Amino acid sequence: MVARADANAADRAARRTSAVTHAGICGTDRHIYEWDAWSRSRVKLGITTGHEFVGRVVAIGSAVTRAAVGQRVSAEGHIGCGICQPCRTGNGHICEKVDILGIDTDGCFAQYVAVPEENIWPVHPDIPDHLAAIFDPLGNAMHTVMAAGVSGRSVLITGVGIIGLMAVSIAHAAGAAKILVTDLDPKRLALAKTLGADEAFAANDDTWPLKARELTHHQGPEVLLEMSGHPKAIRQGFAALRNGGTAALLGLPAEPVALDLPNDIIFKGATVLGINGRKMFETWYQVENFLLSGRLNIDPIVTHRLPMAEFERGFQLMQSGEGIKIVLEMPGL
Amino acid sequence: MVARADANAADRAARRTSAVTHAGICGTDRHIYEWDAWSRSRVKLGITTGHEFVGRVVAIGSAVTRAAVGQRVSAEGHIGCGICQPCRTGNGHICEKVDILGIDTDGCFAQYVAVPEENIWPVHPDIPDHLAAIFDPLGNAMHTVMAAGVSGRSVLITGVGIIGLMAVSIAHAAGAAKILVTDLDPKRLALAKTLGADEAFAANDDTWPLKARELTHHQGPEVLLEMSGHPKAIRQGFAALRNGGTAALLGLPAEPVALDLPNDIIFKGATVLGINGRKMFETWYQVENFLLSGRLNIDPIVTHRLPMAEFERGFQLMQSGEGIKIVLEMPGL
Amino acid sequence: MVARADANAADRAARRTSAVTHAGICGTDRHIYEWDAWSRSRVKLGITTGHEFVGRVVAIGSAVTRAAVGQRVSAEGHIGCGICQPCRTGNGHICEKVDILGIDTDGCFAQYVAVPEENIWPVHPDIPDHLAAIFDPLGNAMHTVMAAGVSGRSVLITGVGIIGLMAVSIAHAAGAAKILVTDLDPKRLALAKTLGADEAFAANDDTWPLKARELTHHQGPEVLLEMSGHPKAIRQGFAALRNGGTAALLGLPAEPVALDLPNDIIFKGATVLGINGRKMFETWYQVENFLLSGRLNIDPIVTHRLPMAEFERGFQLMQSGEGIKIVLEMPGL
Amino acid sequence: MVARADANAADRAARRTSAVTHAGICGTDRHIYEWDAWSRSRVKLGITTGHEFVGRVVAIGSAVTRAAVGQRVSAEGHIGCGICQPCRTGNGHICEKVDILGIDTDGCFAQYVAVPEENIWPVHPDIPDHLAAIFDPLGNAMHTVMAAGVSGRSVLITGVGIIGLMAVSIAHAAGAAKILVTDLDPKRLALAKTLGADEAFAANDDTWPLKARELTHHQGPEVLLEMSGHPKAIRQGFAALRNGGTAALLGLPAEPVALDLPNDIIFKGATVLGINGRKMFETWYQVENFLLSGRLNIDPIVTHRLPMAEFERGFQLMQSGEGIKIVLEMPGL
Repeated sequence: MVARADANAADRAARRTSAVTHAGICGTDRHIYEWDAWSRSRVKLGITTGHEFVGRVVAIGSAVTRAAVGQRVSAEGHIGCGICQPCRTGNGHICEKVDILGIDTDGCFAQYVAVPEENIWPVHPDIPDHLAAIFDPLGNAMHTVMAAGVSGRSVLITGVGIIGLMAVSIAHAAGAAKILVTDLDPKRLALAKTLGADEAFAANDDTWPLKARELTHHQGPEVLLEMSGHPKAIRQGFAALRNGGTAALLGLPAEPVALDLPNDIIFKGATVLGINGRKMFETWYQVENFLLSGRLNIDPIVTHRLPMAEFERGFQLMQSGEGIKIVLEMPGL
Repeated sequence: MVARADANAADRAARRTSAVTHAGICGTDRHIYEWDAWSRSRVKLGITTGHEFVGRVVAIGSAVTRAAVGQRVSAEGHIGCGICQPCRTGNGHICEKVDILGIDTDGCFAQYVAVPEENIWPVHPDIPDHLAAIFDPLGNAMHTVMAAGVSGRSVLITGVGIIGLMAVSIAHAAGAAKILVTDLDPKRLALAKTLGADEAFAANDDTWPLKARELTHHQGPEVLLEMSGHPKAIRQGFAALRNGGTAALLGLPAEPVALDLPNDIIFKGATVLGINGRKMFETWYQVENFLLSGRLNIDPIVTHRLPMAEFERGFQLMQSGEGIKIVLEMPGL
Repeated sequence: MVARADANAADRAARRTSAVTHAGICGTDRHIYEWDAWSRSRVKLGITTGHEFVGRVVAIGSAVTRAAVGQRVSAEGHIGCGICQPCRTGNGHICEKVDILGIDTDGCFAQYVAVPEENIWPVHPDIPDHLAAIFDPLGNAMHTVMAAGVSGRSVLITGVGIIGLMAVSIAHAAGAAKILVTDLDPKRLALAKTLGADEAFAANDDTWPLKARELTHHQGPEVLLEMSGHPKAIRQGFAALRNGGTAALLGLPAEPVALDLPNDIIFKGATVLGINGRKMFETWYQVENFLLSGRLNIDPIVTHRLPMAEFERGFQLMQSGEGIKIVLEMPGL
Repeated sequence: MVARADANAADRAARRTSAVTHAGICGTDRHIYEWDAWSRSRVKLGITTGHEFVGRVVAIGSAVTRAAVGQRVSAEGHIGCGICQPCRTGNGHICEKVDILGIDTDGCFAQYVAVPEENIWPVHPDIPDHLAAIFDPLGNAMHTVMAAGVSGRSVLITGVGIIGLMAVSIAHAAGAAKILVTDLDPKRLALAKTLGADEAFAANDDTWPLKARELTHHQGPEVLLEMSGHPKAIRQGFAALRNGGTAALLGLPAEPVALDLPNDIIFKGATVLGINGRKMFETWYQVENFLLSGRLNIDPIVTHRLPMAEFERGFQLMQSGEGIKIVLEMPGL
């Protein structure tokens, strides 16, 4: 696992190389590990996977001006084309030609990774490595929470997997007045309550929407953060949403979802936000601010820190449900 | 057709009565006229229908302080409960207990109509009767256009029925940089071009999304105003929408619509707005401002002005497609 | 101190009377008590003062439909004209003809007070009387904090009098990442830290702007909440504000303030918000939500609860600085 | 006048050189030409001035990937540091370390100019050279208009110099319902009316604020675009602004301005926006969209197009008031 050199000189000149010290395993990595239908259709054979990491700069391209060897850095894994309208207006995460680190270009499950200097994120010294390594999923959760706006509002989070749990912590730190969550896994529901959820519902108990309504002034939650990707959860979430409420969609359903548009969105005067990646780099400044404030509790979500060589065990812990966020560590770094 | 008195004294005290001089026929009125499945399930037998009108105040309740006999007025047809959170925060249009004039309470296809004083809209003297009578649908179109935000942006309007055509005029006056429309009716497509559309596509020509993309810097329109309610148009509209774009949904599909949420909304980072009624009364102030500016061309959409007694012909003109917006006039008023 | 009857029948019909059980003393009331230059120019002789209260409805006008005898209520003290654009778009607090309870019409330092039903606020049963009585200043603080937007941002509050202290608590509950405050009074600075301020600066130590900058990533705070009304604090606050930051102004300077517009606002790309009263009633729903969430700590700000008869002692406690927010209670209610 | 080479290799590698074909003269350039107090304190001796231009790429640095020799380009003159929070969140125009082309680094009154590739703007082939050369001031005007939001609103523009006149055209294209302007120069007032102003007031006639109020539903304009920098105009503009209105400040007063904050901003619930430069590159996409829409009338503002060698005459035309926007052209290019 060594980072490959780029063929193009100008391109290479603008890149730098980092030695990876810590890497997070994403749900996407698990899809690739299991080589499921999506992975077979999307991921190039031979690519080095992995896109969540922290490391140290060990070499820089000849034109690099914004970094120095020795810096502790993470990097944004969305590599935009740099010349389209989204890229030039702070929306590189929705560039139509975006490359994803670890999917389209070689990623961080390796000793070294090379990324463009625009994507480098210098890590604040007060942020520990196991959190610096997972700014990517923290950023997804932050983007969702901040786009919806939770301050003083009641929030329903459908699905508390890795990012859903992060969203619970973030919504709590960001001033949500009430947090309700749903999931099938009792352990994750319990963890969500530890992180600040006021109520946790078993997703297969069809009375939860009624209870959620009761707990929100009999009007339903003002904000829906959809993090499950399950069609039923999406439909129940929309049905529960208060008139005038905001739904932010992050979870990816595997199939088309039939929505009752008049009742779920139109009559309700709802706002629906599609959430993809992170605002570069507004979202990561928010993550940094919240982490440094001491108000954001993420540690309980990082259930395991393993040596990089035990990556197989890491995937197995995810598959069994015993692990939530797994961080791999390079020994001696 | 005479307005019925209210039984409750306090309620009556807060109402006033208007003599109707002009009334518009809404698509909803046509549904009721045809007594379709929706009407049979929703409209109370014996109700006086109609909700678009202008008239003069002929009597006021004993507690009325905000109007006077003789005033020329229209009225907002959403009658909120007045005590819920939406009603008390300027969002009475999404009150869960809202009554709709002409559906839940007696409407304006009558000599007189009684409405709460909160709903009365004094009409500016420079606005002619045939436009004052249709602030309701003009407001729906305005609400959609202004919620999406069109100034300097490329706009796709799927469906140019009455409200879609109004949206063309409004988007043009509001500074849209490019307006594309789709519909099945060639006459309406032609009228849309007269009102400011840059390009008009036959909805059944499946090459239009490609052409729309070409015409919008090869990125797709920045704004979708969905006014057809047709599942296919909704899906095509979402597919055409630019990454980071805004879709405002007004048209009401009669059935669930299966959406490809990842590609249509989530990866795209799209914003979707459900549009119901009007912002009370922000939207009508916008209508008034635009009409008084002389920049808003609505007259060509009002194809027929008939005596109130010929209302059956009005409905037939709508059914045949010969008429678009029909305004009924009370003779001698 | 008895509420006076209104002369106009229609007006009376739309009003109700409340028996006051608890009333807060506002800084404005102290100005009137001291009969200073502003009071002499603004307040009508003979008016019953006071505008912060909670009570029970004891009588309702004949046209009142939205309240019932026995309800526990507070009321919004901005009584708009009801017919202007601000009033009809949810902005009654900036109606040009607004009447203020206790200044323009008889207020709540009395056994009874009469207010229009539109202004009545039913109090949630879980909110105690001493907090229900002070929704008015809590609302001013909430309006300022929520208009600026503090979630995840660094906040500077210049002046921690009554409303400044409330703003500290609210900013903390609303998810501010860092809170800095300035004031001359060491006791209030200490209380601010108890309520969630990370750092409290003596306003007369001119090194505080430098320290504030150091504590905010060497860029200055992202949000300024100006609550002192002192020209020097206003100028220092603007100078400290980060490029691209937001300043919300609530404090009222007694004289014109000379601003360095290019450096303080224009080059900085700053946003400045004038804050007047509360958004009716969005702000009070926010206050209610935060109070019910259990995350908002207001009790330490209510330093004294006195029998209504001891109102003179209440004013003296304010004047000496010993008291902060004083709530007067009607014995036996 | 030849562009100077940069000393630093890495820096040079990331730059490209353009041959200037057309350059606009900015008011700032006139200040420098007159070598006034501001220029003496701010501009380095020996710098090549000028920052508005269009040209063709004649050479690129070794690491440049986003441009090619032969491209027709303009460039954004704000050269941010690239690593601070504003630069990394789409707000490089308010970078604390920003360099300005033609002030801090050699500018475009020359045969060649070198700019970083991030700043290059490829010009759409349908946009003519004399407009492509002035995207900088057009962008200032666009930024001001779009930040304030004019669609359907009444707009007051105090000061119709170059950028104020551009703002008239843009506000008209962007859907303003009414445009009022003030200035001392009758010729510019007349031109403003040609460009879309509904009313033009002599700034020294102190009755204009009353007339402006009459023309805006007796409430004052909803939007103030301050483009004069004159203290009196600023104060009159704020006084005229409607309650709840928005003021965008672009003009730079030479001295502190004493504002009546309670009446001008706070009680009014006003929003004040400091406008600096352009949003990179959102603003220029807006300029491009509006220009390509055919709805934006800028040509009458470009009063003179002169050979580059006649630049002294260009400055004299500005000084005499005979010229408004002067564009210099390189013969044979």
